[in-house]
Amino acid sequence: MTDYEQHFSRAGAHLQESAIRKMGAVGARIPDLVSFAAGSPAPDLFPWTALREITDRLLESREPGVLQYGGTRGYRPLIESLVEVMATRGVRASVDDTIVTTGSQQGIDLVGRILVDPGDVLLVELPAYAGAITAFRNIGARLVGVRQEADGVDIDHLDRVVQRERSERRRVAALYVTPNFQNPTGLLMSQPKRRLLLDWAARRDVLLIEDDPYGAIYFDEETGPSDTRPIKAGDEEGRVVYLSSFSKTLAPGLRVAWLVAPVAIAGKIETVKQAADLCTGVLDQRIVHEALTTGIVTSGLPELRRRYREKCDVMERALGQELGPLIAWPHPRGGFFLWATLPEGFDADRFLTRALAAKVSYVTGSAFFVDEFDPRLVRLSFSAPAVERIEEGVRRLASAIRDEMAVMSTSSL
Amino acid sequence: MTDYEQHFSRAGAHLQESAIRKMGAVGARIPDLVSFAAGSPAPDLFPWTALREITDRLLESREPGVLQYGGTRGYRPLIESLVEVMATRGVRASVDDTIVTTGSQQGIDLVGRILVDPGDVLLVELPAYAGAITAFRNIGARLVGVRQEADGVDIDHLDRVVQRERSERRRVAALYVTPNFQNPTGLLMSQPKRRLLLDWAARRDVLLIEDDPYGAIYFDEETGPSDTRPIKAGDEEGRVVYLSSFSKTLAPGLRVAWLVAPVAIAGKIETVKQAADLCTGVLDQRIVHEALTTGIVTSGLPELRRRYREKCDVMERALGQELGPLIAWPHPRGGFFLWATLPEGFDADRFLTRALAAKVSYVTGSAFFVDEFDPRLVRLSFSAPAVERIEEGVRRLASAIRDEMAVMSTSSL
Repeated sequence: MTDYEQHFSRAGAHLQESAIRKMGAVGARIPDLVSFAAGSPAPDLFPWTALREITDRLLESREPGVLQYGGTRGYRPLIESLVEVMATRGVRASVDDTIVTTGSQQGIDLVGRILVDPGDVLLVELPAYAGAITAFRNIGARLVGVRQEADGVDIDHLDRVVQRERSERRRVAALYVTPNFQNPTGLLMSQPKRRLLLDWAARRDVLLIEDDPYGAIYFDEETGPSDTRPIKAGDEEGRVVYLSSFSKTLAPGLRVAWLVAPVAIAGKIETVKQAADLCTGVLDQRIVHEALTTGIVTSGLPELRRRYREKCDVMERALGQELGPLIAWPHPRGGFFLWATLPEGFDADRFLTRALAAKVSYVTGSAFFVDEFDPRLVRLSFSAPAVERIEEGVRRLASAIRDEMAVMSTSSL
Repeated sequence: MTDYEQHFSRAGAHLQESAIRKMGAVGARIPDLVSFAAGSPAPDLFPWTALREITDRLLESREPGVLQYGGTRGYRPLIESLVEVMATRGVRASVDDTIVTTGSQQGIDLVGRILVDPGDVLLVELPAYAGAITAFRNIGARLVGVRQEADGVDIDHLDRVVQRERSERRRVAALYVTPNFQNPTGLLMSQPKRRLLLDWAARRDVLLIEDDPYGAIYFDEETGPSDTRPIKAGDEEGRVVYLSSFSKTLAPGLRVAWLVAPVAIAGKIETVKQAADLCTGVLDQRIVHEALTTGIVTSGLPELRRRYREKCDVMERALGQELGPLIAWPHPRGGFFLWATLPEGFDADRFLTRALAAKVSYVTGSAFFVDEFDPRLVRLSFSAPAVERIEEGVRRLASAIRDEMAVMSTSSL
């Protein structure tokens, strides 16, 4: 038989599996599981009726373009709508720097491919979105972490890290950040910090990759658009590649996202996308375009914010009631996640077996780091489960935590 | 301002643009153009009514999975249907070796990424599908061409090429072939040649990438399933990665294709796909699954074969009538393309300006080669235009050819 190991490329031999996807596969085999693992949106918030009407009109039209191959940069009227979306976020984009991608995950991969050679440094906040870590690692990037403070990346540490890497003659390709309700921490980078970061990037000539899937999901009374204004909005020098998506505000099954990049970078991304998938799904793009121009996306946002805030509140309250001081997390002002620290002595990877036996899941913190990490950390997603399921899941988690503590105290006797 | 050149990766700096996509962009700016450039299917052959009904049912169901994130390998019932499709093609596949991809273009890119390191040899038939050449080149492959005979790749030449490359201490990653109605030549690899190729691959320990988008589009009376049986059907050793697609048999705007690979390779492809786009569009997959299980795909095939054969006949007849012995091509037994040789002294790249001025387009042969080539070669797609437009396009092409010949004879005086 064929020996495959010798046939794999170096990249192929050293691929890193997605911890989140793996948890999804594990979870799918457990009946009645409450999953706090996947960062999926709530399917009851998808605008089913509107999407059905839109899709019916599109397919009734028999317009060839609805089902034919499309341009690599995306459906032109959708791109024009995206330029308008960017304007509402304070960013002056144009049709020449905007590209539709097959989910933001593709955007991350494509940007990585045109910027990173194997061995180049890719800077990430600690912790950082596991899917970005995996994508950059699979390209062969040397991932180097930078500490985060409550208001975002620690710029002093960032500067020391870049100086160190460069003094060791390594090329620093970019810094990847998620300023709005970061995955996994839920943290919001302050506006002054964003300006400082942009100044720093200009001083050190570093490109920024700004990932913004959650910016529209802020929890209103506390937070608004002036807090979530992208770094890209202040990008006079063309130093920021900005990524966003309809996965959280419309539906992820449509796989429509976009990026805005300096024209020279956008051109490279178009070329690499030609060979990566020719074009993003065209029916999907047409549906999203109609949802944008008929106002479905915008008019749905207040309800999304209200409902995700409610879910967040329910999870925070339940955790407080069930576990009190045994568990802690920074209060998120938007997004899908709580970034929680389990009790002293816990190892989230080890504890997962007990949690799954209790029919509740999470993603262990290790997935979001690139070097050492606190083994007590877990990401709890409140986005997908219904409110009663969140409460039930927290009860199960609390019970499993108490069981684990009982075992720990016995074995330490 | 930012100097981007220094920020690009080596791969990013040396990306190759898709000649076909470029022609598409050029053509879109010319009103009333007859395009023989794009290999697009005919949109009037898309099963509009059936797809509309299917999609309406799916969205009416409000089943969360229709619009939610999906598994990276694809929608499980679709994978099960694909295993059945493979059985009809003589291939024993399983759910563990079958993966849904975002178009076959993604399949080619992902397979390339796990097999090819920069500098590794990737063997291609000459000529070969331009999109594969671009994908492999963008990964950094050293593309080495192998001659084709009327019945497929020249195995003696192939063997000499592999021996030569290995003697120069290069790693040979795989051979990429399109045995059924090859893009661009329309050639059909004979069944004996397929067996010889598989034997050769075992002897030399080379993996095969078998791309089969056109296998179902044979022109019945002459050709049938026994002629298009994939190489993969005889692959006892697990040496073939097989790719196919619904772009030609259903609609390319849905971006649903699949691959069947040895389990070890399929696992790697799943992992690299996790980071490339998480999953293929889920609504698209559900639509394709319904189209398969309700029989829409299969029942549509006879009509597709009849209509594409008719278009091929019309183009062949028109070329013969308009140009007689000035133009030649191998008669295709299926697929979307004529691979034509322009008159003596022509340069297809140079002649393109005149052709576009006459409002007809093609893809120049250069896009399908990796080293030297006959500059007279062009790929003419008959798949998309209506019959009358094919006739009109051939008249325009013939007129442009005669004009070019007149100029050539004048300038050679």
